[in-house]
Amino acid sequence: MNKRSFASDNNAGVHPIIMKSLNDCNQGHVVGYGDDPYTQSAIATFKNIFTNKAEPFFVYGGTGANVLAVGSMCRPFESVICTQTAHINVDECGAPERFSGAKLVDIPSPDGKLTPKMIRPYLHGFDFEHHSQPKAISISQPTEMGTLYAIDELKALREIADEFNLYLHMDGARISNAAVALDKNFKEFTLDCGIDVLSFGGNKNGMMFGEALLFFNEKLSQNFKYVRKQAMQLHSKMRFISAQFDTFIKTDIWKKNAEHSNKMAQILLNKIKNLPGIQVTQKVETNAIFVRIPHEIISKVQEEYFFYVWDESKSEVRWMTSFDTTEEDIENFVKTIKKHIK
Amino acid sequence: MNKRSFASDNNAGVHPIIMKSLNDCNQGHVVGYGDDPYTQSAIATFKNIFTNKAEPFFVYGGTGANVLAVGSMCRPFESVICTQTAHINVDECGAPERFSGAKLVDIPSPDGKLTPKMIRPYLHGFDFEHHSQPKAISISQPTEMGTLYAIDELKALREIADEFNLYLHMDGARISNAAVALDKNFKEFTLDCGIDVLSFGGNKNGMMFGEALLFFNEKLSQNFKYVRKQAMQLHSKMRFISAQFDTFIKTDIWKKNAEHSNKMAQILLNKIKNLPGIQVTQKVETNAIFVRIPHEIISKVQEEYFFYVWDESKSEVRWMTSFDTTEEDIENFVKTIKKHIK
Amino acid sequence: MNKRSFASDNNAGVHPIIMKSLNDCNQGHVVGYGDDPYTQSAIATFKNIFTNKAEPFFVYGGTGANVLAVGSMCRPFESVICTQTAHINVDECGAPERFSGAKLVDIPSPDGKLTPKMIRPYLHGFDFEHHSQPKAISISQPTEMGTLYAIDELKALREIADEFNLYLHMDGARISNAAVALDKNFKEFTLDCGIDVLSFGGNKNGMMFGEALLFFNEKLSQNFKYVRKQAMQLHSKMRFISAQFDTFIKTDIWKKNAEHSNKMAQILLNKIKNLPGIQVTQKVETNAIFVRIPHEIISKVQEEYFFYVWDESKSEVRWMTSFDTTEEDIENFVKTIKKHIK
Amino acid sequence: MNKRSFASDNNAGVHPIIMKSLNDCNQGHVVGYGDDPYTQSAIATFKNIFTNKAEPFFVYGGTGANVLAVGSMCRPFESVICTQTAHINVDECGAPERFSGAKLVDIPSPDGKLTPKMIRPYLHGFDFEHHSQPKAISISQPTEMGTLYAIDELKALREIADEFNLYLHMDGARISNAAVALDKNFKEFTLDCGIDVLSFGGNKNGMMFGEALLFFNEKLSQNFKYVRKQAMQLHSKMRFISAQFDTFIKTDIWKKNAEHSNKMAQILLNKIKNLPGIQVTQKVETNAIFVRIPHEIISKVQEEYFFYVWDESKSEVRWMTSFDTTEEDIENFVKTIKKHIK
Repeated sequence: MNKRSFASDNNAGVHPIIMKSLNDCNQGHVVGYGDDPYTQSAIATFKNIFTNKAEPFFVYGGTGANVLAVGSMCRPFESVICTQTAHINVDECGAPERFSGAKLVDIPSPDGKLTPKMIRPYLHGFDFEHHSQPKAISISQPTEMGTLYAIDELKALREIADEFNLYLHMDGARISNAAVALDKNFKEFTLDCGIDVLSFGGNKNGMMFGEALLFFNEKLSQNFKYVRKQAMQLHSKMRFISAQFDTFIKTDIWKKNAEHSNKMAQILLNKIKNLPGIQVTQKVETNAIFVRIPHEIISKVQEEYFFYVWDESKSEVRWMTSFDTTEEDIENFVKTIKKHIK
Repeated sequence: MNKRSFASDNNAGVHPIIMKSLNDCNQGHVVGYGDDPYTQSAIATFKNIFTNKAEPFFVYGGTGANVLAVGSMCRPFESVICTQTAHINVDECGAPERFSGAKLVDIPSPDGKLTPKMIRPYLHGFDFEHHSQPKAISISQPTEMGTLYAIDELKALREIADEFNLYLHMDGARISNAAVALDKNFKEFTLDCGIDVLSFGGNKNGMMFGEALLFFNEKLSQNFKYVRKQAMQLHSKMRFISAQFDTFIKTDIWKKNAEHSNKMAQILLNKIKNLPGIQVTQKVETNAIFVRIPHEIISKVQEEYFFYVWDESKSEVRWMTSFDTTEEDIENFVKTIKKHIK
Repeated sequence: MNKRSFASDNNAGVHPIIMKSLNDCNQGHVVGYGDDPYTQSAIATFKNIFTNKAEPFFVYGGTGANVLAVGSMCRPFESVICTQTAHINVDECGAPERFSGAKLVDIPSPDGKLTPKMIRPYLHGFDFEHHSQPKAISISQPTEMGTLYAIDELKALREIADEFNLYLHMDGARISNAAVALDKNFKEFTLDCGIDVLSFGGNKNGMMFGEALLFFNEKLSQNFKYVRKQAMQLHSKMRFISAQFDTFIKTDIWKKNAEHSNKMAQILLNKIKNLPGIQVTQKVETNAIFVRIPHEIISKVQEEYFFYVWDESKSEVRWMTSFDTTEEDIENFVKTIKKHIK
Repeated sequence: MNKRSFASDNNAGVHPIIMKSLNDCNQGHVVGYGDDPYTQSAIATFKNIFTNKAEPFFVYGGTGANVLAVGSMCRPFESVICTQTAHINVDECGAPERFSGAKLVDIPSPDGKLTPKMIRPYLHGFDFEHHSQPKAISISQPTEMGTLYAIDELKALREIADEFNLYLHMDGARISNAAVALDKNFKEFTLDCGIDVLSFGGNKNGMMFGEALLFFNEKLSQNFKYVRKQAMQLHSKMRFISAQFDTFIKTDIWKKNAEHSNKMAQILLNKIKNLPGIQVTQKVETNAIFVRIPHEIISKVQEEYFFYVWDESKSEVRWMTSFDTTEEDIENFVKTIKKHIK
């Protein structure tokens, strides 16, 4: 068996209950491209959570979901406001711009969050044809820094979005971790806070492939079926995405897994925060830990555990826990760190 | 269990051996995005078939593979020659044009095949800046009409491609069916015939998701890793595509499945070809059967078996057999047809 | 002085009255990008012809106008129906596809015209996400073959467009020639026939640069100012386009020039139609003449007069008359032809 | 006659010598699209300045030139580094991203200039497929803030470009103003400093329309003729752009005009810099003046003279002088300012 690392929650495999759902739905023939009972069931499950205001669509992955969200909100002459660290800004190889033709306006943010005050100075040039027209705000919940927007903070973003007639997108690649950390159901911090379109991820929390894109604004979902197909994001054997999501939600495996990975992050945090030379740089609210560690030990620890250096210049690294991280994994990892840190 | 239909080979599920490979690779953590042992193994397996001239990349699906093939061959001011019935021309919602910016030049072809003679009249306007510059030929093997290119016919296409400095792409969504029908190994009718880039499908022959894009021309594969990511076709948990392909090929399940579905097509053909009012419109060389049937029975049969009408004006329909089609399925299907036909 | 040829009406220069308008408007400062009195006047002039239903915008050239028309009518997952010989299909290097992301569906047409009967078989696949959705018809008036749509023929196209909810675009690169040939005012064969968007050209009839794009459907013109800017088609010193158009129309120079070039085409036609070995292949309704001529004389005549070979395989060439063609030019040209034809 | 303003140098008209060149070249027929003697002459004129290493192409305007420069340097998965105030970043409505598919990485810069030190932190993520790959630096000379790069500063940018294998683009929309201010010939601060591609503008210095794009790197100019056509930037009656440029350079009108507008800026500067409540915010090195003025007088002065507010929050405005600005214009303008300022 491969060693469990702290590089990313997508280095983990598939939860056994999800794997079982794949085996279970592998029965006989169903019509392709989503016109099948498994997909109907998964859609109903999502509508059950989010009411009929939600229009769920399944795509292949997180980049696909985010990019198609941007493309649904913005025409090519419009722009999306996001943080400099946003996944859409730095981890999708320019896919949002290429696919939508729209511009990303990226704002520096130390904790990965946006506030109305940070956004307001960028909201100008309306009606001026030389300027990409601001049309959307995209946030991540939890953020790429592992931090969380509180309900009030989300509502404040909705207010400024309303003031300037902007759409609001949430990248929920790790939405389960946010839900359990906030102790809210999914709807309370998305639809109820005025989110227009939500990338709902499961892949980093025990699924194999597939991502849901949920529209809460009917203006945005019309024609989306064509957009998805043209964007190479329509799976032929759709049941194998749908069945995973249906199970993910109905069995509460999303919750159990997220609670676990969040808890493991706290355990890891407690074990390393007082180590000499280590400085925690972000609030640990979900399953990510950002720390500055002595530069000389980075490569040494990486020999045993692969993980990403976040900011070379600051000797800052990112560690993530997963649904399958064990306390023993943490023990061993911390032992390795300590060995090199002395 | 859902009834097995004759609508498409992608209405079938996943072959048990492939499903087992997914279960088997679900062990612990591995690095994401393809830097894992399963992917290394699958790449080696493909190189074993195609020699080191092949550079294999895994993407999410067939449209992704085809579109990225077009995008790799053509700059936006160039064009691809294909048939009017080509999947890239009629079944991908304009994705090739949108993604690559290039033009599709589609040629009418009764049997889904291209010949040098059909192509030559379209090869003009070189060096004339008002004209999209012809840069590639894209063919399907087997074609969308279920027909096959013989080795000689492929080599003739390579010759005209050389004459005009064109790339040659093969859409092998059902390449296994072609291989067994031709009784050739994969390399003999691809790389050995001068194909530059190959979409290698498994999804319609028992896999769950994923498609391989194989470059046999190193000019085309440089930088492809960025293209794949920007095109939203890079899977994070790559091992779950790689393990399927590795098993698909190593166990010869590709062969067993394709032999079976081709054979089932012959059995179905023999049972229906002499029925009154039925006219077979294409040579049945793989697992597709095209037939004109009495117009009034189409919807009646569709009540029991979903399938696609190919050409409404001609009352022409398409029936496809799958790796899991049984002789009993055929019996029952033919019984239904006969019931309505008399 | 350079010899006047029969290659294209854009090989001619600028009519003196247009040149004078450029000199006249070159007075002091005006605000850039169209917020100037010359542009206001030109817009009013167009609205005077077409009523307030028209929203005119000025762009740099004909390709810009056509491509932005396509981009205004179609989202990337939609398609435009046109003839195989349409300028947008063969003379714009794939610009419509690249810019709009939409698909061109090109129909063979011997005389460059479309009829509802020709279009109908292509109007299928609606609501089917695998298929680019038909959304517009684009015609040229006069066509690239120099032929004309009669009023009735245009209305018939509007009917089928209405039946399938399609937009109707007219490429009027040589619209003046059409107007005088039809003996109709501009509005009668555009807005009154249900055209939604019109490329109104002047460049081939005595102007220096600039093309007007006229929207007769307010759904299409909203946001166009951003589209024009992003498409690199917004001129800073706009007055120099506007003043030309204002003069072009107000002085009836458009009419005088077009009457002249059409008349010259008839004179040329009459002088060559009975020459041995020459066969006129299209009705000469405007200022273009298509003829098959003996293959061996093509290059000989081209030594003295540059012109385009239309179809090499048929030895078919195109000759065009211009606003400045003289009867003497024709005499000399015919003399050259005769010299070689003997 | 319209009052001459200080809004932008493109609010001026066309210099009489340029206008004469347009009249002069309006003689008879020439082949379209650039295959004419005027264009050959203009190309030779540019090669005379820049040597045969230069490949000049003419396009319609400055946005076209800049966007096509970006598109020539970058594939869609690559990125261009520029300042936040760069014209390509804020004044082209997202055209560079839309056309090229590439990402703009914009860096804050108080004076509109980039230095290697500012750029270096953004040069990371090479070979990492999740990250747009840095491929070019784009600078403006003079900058949008009217400031200038010294020769040494340009060479330092070339050095870091070489270190990271980047192309270097210069937006020379006001290149004449730079040349006279630096007292260098065009080649010395472009080709000799390692610029790969140059947008050479004339429109803001007395021309009517057209911009030159000069490639000094043959890798970038191959196939550019197709790119230009597909980008809707190929003028049919090309001689009317070429003749302007040929005259612009040969007659030294570029120099005379730029010397004049730069000088007028100094005169205006001297008259306003000590006025109460006025603060000059940028070095005045060419023909732009940036000043903070009392907020309450902005709209009052604008009633008589249109100009742009640069930064509302700082009450900062931009005034530009033109080739046709007179000392009397300045007198009157300053009088108006003084009237409101007291």
